[in-house]
Amino acid sequence: MRETLAPKDLSKDAFDIAKGSINAVLPEEAVAKALRGRSFPGNIVLVAIGKAAWRMAKAAYDMQGKRVLCGVVITKYGHSQGPIGNLKIFEAGHPIPDENSVIATQAALEAVAGLSSDDTVLFLVSGGGSALFEKPKEGISLDDIAEVTEALLRCGADIVEINAIRKRLSAVKGGRFAQTVYPAKVYSVVLSDVLGDRLDSIASGPAYPDGTTCEQALGILRKYGLKLKPHILRLLEEETPKKLPNVETVVIGSVKVMCEEAAKVALELGYETTILTTTLNCEAREAGSFMAALAREERIYNRPLHRPCVLIAGGETVVHVRGQGLGGRNQELSLSAAIGIEGLEDVVILAIGSDGTDGPTDAAGGVVDGTTVAKLKACGFDPQSMLDDNDSYHALEACGGLIKTGPTGTNVNDLILLICN
Amino acid sequence: MRETLAPKDLSKDAFDIAKGSINAVLPEEAVAKALRGRSFPGNIVLVAIGKAAWRMAKAAYDMQGKRVLCGVVITKYGHSQGPIGNLKIFEAGHPIPDENSVIATQAALEAVAGLSSDDTVLFLVSGGGSALFEKPKEGISLDDIAEVTEALLRCGADIVEINAIRKRLSAVKGGRFAQTVYPAKVYSVVLSDVLGDRLDSIASGPAYPDGTTCEQALGILRKYGLKLKPHILRLLEEETPKKLPNVETVVIGSVKVMCEEAAKVALELGYETTILTTTLNCEAREAGSFMAALAREERIYNRPLHRPCVLIAGGETVVHVRGQGLGGRNQELSLSAAIGIEGLEDVVILAIGSDGTDGPTDAAGGVVDGTTVAKLKACGFDPQSMLDDNDSYHALEACGGLIKTGPTGTNVNDLILLICN
Repeated sequence: MRETLAPKDLSKDAFDIAKGSINAVLPEEAVAKALRGRSFPGNIVLVAIGKAAWRMAKAAYDMQGKRVLCGVVITKYGHSQGPIGNLKIFEAGHPIPDENSVIATQAALEAVAGLSSDDTVLFLVSGGGSALFEKPKEGISLDDIAEVTEALLRCGADIVEINAIRKRLSAVKGGRFAQTVYPAKVYSVVLSDVLGDRLDSIASGPAYPDGTTCEQALGILRKYGLKLKPHILRLLEEETPKKLPNVETVVIGSVKVMCEEAAKVALELGYETTILTTTLNCEAREAGSFMAALAREERIYNRPLHRPCVLIAGGETVVHVRGQGLGGRNQELSLSAAIGIEGLEDVVILAIGSDGTDGPTDAAGGVVDGTTVAKLKACGFDPQSMLDDNDSYHALEACGGLIKTGPTGTNVNDLILLICN
Repeated sequence: MRETLAPKDLSKDAFDIAKGSINAVLPEEAVAKALRGRSFPGNIVLVAIGKAAWRMAKAAYDMQGKRVLCGVVITKYGHSQGPIGNLKIFEAGHPIPDENSVIATQAALEAVAGLSSDDTVLFLVSGGGSALFEKPKEGISLDDIAEVTEALLRCGADIVEINAIRKRLSAVKGGRFAQTVYPAKVYSVVLSDVLGDRLDSIASGPAYPDGTTCEQALGILRKYGLKLKPHILRLLEEETPKKLPNVETVVIGSVKVMCEEAAKVALELGYETTILTTTLNCEAREAGSFMAALAREERIYNRPLHRPCVLIAGGETVVHVRGQGLGGRNQELSLSAAIGIEGLEDVVILAIGSDGTDGPTDAAGGVVDGTTVAKLKACGFDPQSMLDDNDSYHALEACGGLIKTGPTGTNVNDLILLICN
């Protein structure tokens, strides 16, 4: 079968698969699916939060604009693309909430105030909402929340854990926003950035019954040995709503949809294809090492699939920073994979954040092959030392392995591709 | 299809698959394959080294005993099972060589001294040979070598890297044993414990042209920032033999053979089966996390295989010890996997060292399922804290997850099984 195919450009195919799969989870696509054929009896107030908020709001407004009484859009700096009808557009801090997050959230709360049980809050939720949609509970400051968030990020807590703590410090998270909106209805359209689509975790679940308990929140503190100030610790003991009868939720885009689209595109390009997992959450460099071990098996023994083939993994890996370099989880995964596939022919590994932003860099991820290490060494770089220094950005930059897309407008975790020919 | 099968006992099946696959790489099997129908013209001197040395020697002696002039067997403490004909049996230190390693190696060198080009050294090599077969180069002591080895283990160097350094400090490694034996022939029968079966790495390749260079050895020092004393550093600059015309080598048992046998047994038990990789070498706990991510995908979406199914990985993971607990790489992988599959039904993950020894413990590995975390919590243990403390032994002990086999007599790396029903 292999001989009958035209020669493959693996890097190009990897890009095409990544592009096709991210396109399938763009906000316009998600919102159109959720609103098509749908009608709401009373007034509509639109509230959109997250990195994809502007584009979700635009799509919704294009479909339901005449019915929208008013609305608020809260997105990350640089993510607004201009006015949308009568909506108020805010940009605010991410991943750390700032004063603009609070100002925008206050505006949203004012927009939904005094609605009746006939009215609907069209609530468009995407990743990043945790930072952007924030109002500290009475008695604490945004600095308190920022401090707790930073401490959690530093010790390697995952997004589920961070949100379990943070929602208790907030007046809008953990279902509290929907509680405020009651008796008006909430129609929540979700672009998921949380593995396994746990709805109480996505954007810290402002309109979803909280599945976490005070006890679990305190357990996370113990796990990482974190000490909180008494006036903050007190809030962790205040329980969040467990029932929200006014809320309906639909999840449209997710890492699962993205992976399945990747499989579809790869198949169309003539590859045997499998999805390994959509909930990968281990250390980035070790995921790279694991993918490289799969690549070696593929090269040497032509398994677990038959060439040409694509193995797909979705998820969100983590990086425990120990070095001083620049990078992101997808770049670090790629660099680590490059070391594991050194010298192999006809193998490409690509890792990309669907939001177009990987760590504190202007790159979305990385793409590597069997020649990457040799290229780096030829430039006088030691790949392993750079990986040890968490300097994947500069390593990939030196060998042409950075992927830069700019913000994609969506955020459904990461896509990892292993292609063998 | 699932309904037509008898209910499965996943743990039992996991044990049976592991047992069947390890049986296939037992030394007797390997040696019988290598010697069957084989004849040698002159005298035979038998030299067996490694954890499997006694059993390989016994099998060889049973087949060729009448032709064996003399011989030396060097194995780990507790691994000898008594006299074999006229062979001299030694036990010595592993993983750190001791004075008995040197005494035994000296006896082997005396046994092969003065052979003619008609004669053959039947050289039976298995894992552990690096420590057991050792004679320091002129000018350095065993303590020097032990110190270097310990330093390398501590900083997380893998077995390939450790051997690249250590062979240069040795009078028998890196092809130097075969060089000494010349003009006599060497027929080398290898049970491989090195990923990818690099023959110059197995037991540090006493009878194989060394594929590593002085430059690479020095590079490993730089990679880990290790400083050596000047009289040791000098030896790293002495090149090892690159050609050995008197040697013939056959590799009989390896992690690949073990994984393929595991697939065969699993298939016979009615499972859909795939081998993911035979060269897994990432951090143990992250491999466990990755396997758990595969398990979740299997449970939720019934892919990449269809239930009932077994996913197989072979290799040798590493542990960077940061805690104070007791454990081994397979136990740590299992405990980490248990955290990742918490609450899942009909999933078992098993990880086992084929040699029956996992880390400095009396266990061979671990087996976990979706109830493991709950069991631990019920005992008052926090699985994540125990993992953080590298205390997988006591965690698995508390929940009945330890696998104890005793020494199996073989050593071809580790087997990891994920079973879903």
